[in-house]
Amino acid sequence: MDLSAGDCDRGRGVVLNSRVRIEVPAGSGFGRTHLPYGVFRPMGEQPRVGVRLGDSVIDLAVALDDPMFAQPSLNAFMTQGPQCWREVRERVTVAADAELPAAAVHPIHAVSLDLPIEIGDYVDFYASLDHATALGRMLRPNGDALLPNWRHLPVGYHGRSGTVVVSGTEIARPSGQRKTDSDTPDFGPSRRLDIEAELGFVVGAGSPLGTPLGTGDFDAHVFGVALVDDWSARDIQAWEGQPLGPFLGKSFATSLSAWVTPLDALAKARIPLPPQDPEPLPYLRDTDPWGLDIELTVAWNGQVVSTPPYRRMYWSPAQMLAHMTVNGASTRTGDLFASGTVSGPERAERGSLMEITWAGTDPVTVNGVQRTFLQDGDEVVITASAPALDGTRLTLGEVRGTVKPA
Amino acid sequence: MDLSAGDCDRGRGVVLNSRVRIEVPAGSGFGRTHLPYGVFRPMGEQPRVGVRLGDSVIDLAVALDDPMFAQPSLNAFMTQGPQCWREVRERVTVAADAELPAAAVHPIHAVSLDLPIEIGDYVDFYASLDHATALGRMLRPNGDALLPNWRHLPVGYHGRSGTVVVSGTEIARPSGQRKTDSDTPDFGPSRRLDIEAELGFVVGAGSPLGTPLGTGDFDAHVFGVALVDDWSARDIQAWEGQPLGPFLGKSFATSLSAWVTPLDALAKARIPLPPQDPEPLPYLRDTDPWGLDIELTVAWNGQVVSTPPYRRMYWSPAQMLAHMTVNGASTRTGDLFASGTVSGPERAERGSLMEITWAGTDPVTVNGVQRTFLQDGDEVVITASAPALDGTRLTLGEVRGTVKPA
Repeated sequence: MDLSAGDCDRGRGVVLNSRVRIEVPAGSGFGRTHLPYGVFRPMGEQPRVGVRLGDSVIDLAVALDDPMFAQPSLNAFMTQGPQCWREVRERVTVAADAELPAAAVHPIHAVSLDLPIEIGDYVDFYASLDHATALGRMLRPNGDALLPNWRHLPVGYHGRSGTVVVSGTEIARPSGQRKTDSDTPDFGPSRRLDIEAELGFVVGAGSPLGTPLGTGDFDAHVFGVALVDDWSARDIQAWEGQPLGPFLGKSFATSLSAWVTPLDALAKARIPLPPQDPEPLPYLRDTDPWGLDIELTVAWNGQVVSTPPYRRMYWSPAQMLAHMTVNGASTRTGDLFASGTVSGPERAERGSLMEITWAGTDPVTVNGVQRTFLQDGDEVVITASAPALDGTRLTLGEVRGTVKPA
Repeated sequence: MDLSAGDCDRGRGVVLNSRVRIEVPAGSGFGRTHLPYGVFRPMGEQPRVGVRLGDSVIDLAVALDDPMFAQPSLNAFMTQGPQCWREVRERVTVAADAELPAAAVHPIHAVSLDLPIEIGDYVDFYASLDHATALGRMLRPNGDALLPNWRHLPVGYHGRSGTVVVSGTEIARPSGQRKTDSDTPDFGPSRRLDIEAELGFVVGAGSPLGTPLGTGDFDAHVFGVALVDDWSARDIQAWEGQPLGPFLGKSFATSLSAWVTPLDALAKARIPLPPQDPEPLPYLRDTDPWGLDIELTVAWNGQVVSTPPYRRMYWSPAQMLAHMTVNGASTRTGDLFASGTVSGPERAERGSLMEITWAGTDPVTVNGVQRTFLQDGDEVVITASAPALDGTRLTLGEVRGTVKPA
């Protein structure tokens, strides 16, 4: 196959020079059928778009000789739409198996990674039945675990897009008004700092105001998938959240993985969606409702405390997109919508410390110590794997954060 | 005074050519001490930054010979910071009183107006005691009108920045899941489409992650003020809103006035903030807490149905900014935060139809017809006036919208 341009009409062929072929270590989650996109900086240079292969980063502006990738975000590429995404992926697939100009290949340890997308709107859903049920049982021990609307629509809300940070960014413990046992708050650094392990979906091709997207429009608009850690200050959230929802308990930071996995790389991870009861309204139905067989892992100071199963999620990614736009809301290149905490029914499958420790009442042992919420210096790393196209497993880009003092 | 550059270091003096002096009609709210900024398009030309004076628009890229204003938003100018804002205002003040090149002056009726800012995050507060009390009385007739947190913090949430539209944009009635009398929704076009008359504050100079802004930092970061109509579908909002707050009931459209009034033009509108009880926490205190003596007007199909008084707002704009960042959240050039519905205690002072018609139970007569919520074809125009620096009154840019069918 020829590396020169097709539909995107931007490539100009590969510069000949000293050449290397990237070796992929056995068992790497970044094999030749994964090829996630990110934004990297070689030492002292400007940020540009790269693809991860094994322990290397391919500089696309060089490898494909295309200035569309000499950009500090994926947005210029994503806005081109799905035909271009597919064609670039085909060209990258060929390039990944070929000898590349040495200037196009960087060892992963020699580059820094930036936030891969310029984020438009950030929406966070609440799509796990197990998570919503657990939270409901904690918050309403004598009432119904689920509120009446939960099984009719994917509950969601807008978060702060300006404080989405790339994996590895230190997370400063937020201060704020904290809920107490009385109707008066106190003020100070959050004492109940938590994580939420989530999957995020990146809109590549936007849609105009007044045009709802159907569940079948997902592949034409969503570019790829990334991991999200929706850091949460539970004491701030509990006090501020009525009646308008989460605000400062969430807006101090949301971490996004540095690598965005293209949808096509996850074709073998698509599985039937678990049954929904009652049947959703027509705009949420799909001819072939699909979920994703992705297994998340939460490591706290190096110890795995949970393996949340994405396959159990109640609302599908396509339903989230259809719901988000059913009122005519537009979408933009760079919009990010996340699943909400991914949890299974078992303790070791829950995606937040709130659930794992049952609101702090049931500590978990981490490296031999009884723990509830995050302390300064704690590190959390969320990883995920899924079936790859070649029969191995691919690894989504991790999302990592260390807590620093307020 | 010299029109050439100072601190911004961008001006290059005025081109000599055929010249005009703009006449300001008597009683205009756009006099020589107002000078709001917007983005306009002369017929068939590219959008650029202008200043409104009387019934004319001054093309700043031409009048000040500065390419910073040959831009489709105010962002490039706003990001320069308060010293530059003040200097440009001084130069515009001189230019507004001088003979300008004819090419720099356009009649307002000959241009179209664009959204003036590229919006980062959009936050909506809930800062009116009268509004929150009225809503609380409707929603909790047997409970406390105010929730326990309301007097301790300015309640707020993030809205959808991608669906903020400029005044004059038609508003399509949204469809969605509507609350019914049972625990099952129905689906269709909203039957309870409403307005919210609000004041919006535009962040000009951002602040980094991890750096809370104090109440005293307001003038260094906020560029100006605009009017906001936060269109609301009450039946959608009522069904979806628990536990995470408003989402699709708001995200279909939020209208912003085309003109942004610089803070300096509102210096005479600053008045002492009404008393707050209990005393706010230290981070929300101000050495000299101030509100704004701005009178809003809501016209429904040409008939004034309400005159909401901004001077009664409980939480100050500076407190909103301090609260929004107390957890370390960053701000960006173009962030918009709005006050929430401006309402007074009297029926004719309420800023939403929900309040004016008491959730639709107490219709209001508009042009001789009994009305509750908005019907297709209805037009709402929100205007506002405030004391100007020269002793007259200035008029904020209006925010206007007509409802079109779903």
